[in-house]
Amino acid sequence: MSIASIRLYVPGPLAAGGEIALSEAQSHYIATVMRAAEGDALRVFDGASGEWRAAVSKLSRKAVTLTLIEQTRPQAPEPDAWLCFALLKRAKTDMVVEKATELGVSVIQPIITARTNADHVNLDRLRAIAIEAAEQCERLAVPEIRAPLPVGRLMAQWPEDRPLFIADERRTAGLLGPVTGKSALMVGPEGGFTEAELEAIGRIPQVTRVSLGARILRAETAAIAGLTLQLAAQS
Amino acid sequence: MSIASIRLYVPGPLAAGGEIALSEAQSHYIATVMRAAEGDALRVFDGASGEWRAAVSKLSRKAVTLTLIEQTRPQAPEPDAWLCFALLKRAKTDMVVEKATELGVSVIQPIITARTNADHVNLDRLRAIAIEAAEQCERLAVPEIRAPLPVGRLMAQWPEDRPLFIADERRTAGLLGPVTGKSALMVGPEGGFTEAELEAIGRIPQVTRVSLGARILRAETAAIAGLTLQLAAQS
Repeated sequence: MSIASIRLYVPGPLAAGGEIALSEAQSHYIATVMRAAEGDALRVFDGASGEWRAAVSKLSRKAVTLTLIEQTRPQAPEPDAWLCFALLKRAKTDMVVEKATELGVSVIQPIITARTNADHVNLDRLRAIAIEAAEQCERLAVPEIRAPLPVGRLMAQWPEDRPLFIADERRTAGLLGPVTGKSALMVGPEGGFTEAELEAIGRIPQVTRVSLGARILRAETAAIAGLTLQLAAQS
Repeated sequence: MSIASIRLYVPGPLAAGGEIALSEAQSHYIATVMRAAEGDALRVFDGASGEWRAAVSKLSRKAVTLTLIEQTRPQAPEPDAWLCFALLKRAKTDMVVEKATELGVSVIQPIITARTNADHVNLDRLRAIAIEAAEQCERLAVPEIRAPLPVGRLMAQWPEDRPLFIADERRTAGLLGPVTGKSALMVGPEGGFTEAELEAIGRIPQVTRVSLGARILRAETAAIAGLTLQLAAQS
């Protein structure tokens, strides 16, 4: 990998001539792992100011400073799509966050259900995974990772203007198709939602039950497949 | 997990009253891990005879025998869809095999390209992953895992009657949609196919270049998203 192909998520705002102090971890990566020299150019984005070319202007092993040269891509609208998913074991939760970021979600909301056997999650680690995925997949924004909420609490405060599609294992629903505008996909735990949870979810008028296809999918596959069906057609 | 919810892939053919000698690993799982008793019933399938209920008829720690009771589901047609993908690092290759099995592929063909940095793969391990995924996701068949082939060799022997969809990172192609009948999806390596490879692939009239959506996906995500778009609508 060359320095020029590196993309870093940095704090904004970004403007020509501005200086960016990289974090200690980013500085280590640029100075020690990638052995950058002063003047080397790479790309940065902040989620709001588009993508910029920036050059290494001060270089030490723990503190690298970049100077912004020019905007290479303007900020562009991204899908306003949430993913709500029942927490999984660590490796699967990590995978869902990485893949959901690649597929373009704007918000990742972990949920806790009666059949969820995880209730704690390291949000900083999930945020780092989302940032790395956004850096690598050329996205201009990083999804927001929210703190886990019990599904009942989430339903009680569900926004009126956001349609919510629930993956239905009973497969009597229609196939999930492309969705534009505000949307959300919800995927239950491995054992499924309880009847009481389904009833609480069903009371919200924004909810539509949908199928993700003819086959039975593991929870993490359901999240990836559902986001694919919902977002692939959306630029 | 209860004994009744276990599904095992076993050698066929299956017929009422027939006996199935489980493998040593399956016997260990049933006798020692799950602590089954004689008479306990579970489900088996062989990829051709549908799904059957079977009871434990002989029980020892290394050799369990089942007796077939009755068919619970007839064999049903599954999609005739191949996945050809450039070999990835081990964990990602494993993930692709597991998810492709869940999503319903019939054949998994690893390929070797100029930019593939893996050229060896443990086919027995991949077959075990596919079997476990098929057992857990209620499929009635296990995809065939073929030995890796250089992409040029695969193209030279490509079957005349099988359309091949190539995931195109340049995103000028139309979005991949549902496909019925014989089909195949091909996903290149992280660095993409070389120009020479693309030319060799493009010479095959069965090839159509397709987009997997507006965002840039890692290779393993491209495989999962492509199979979702292609197979979700197909029963």
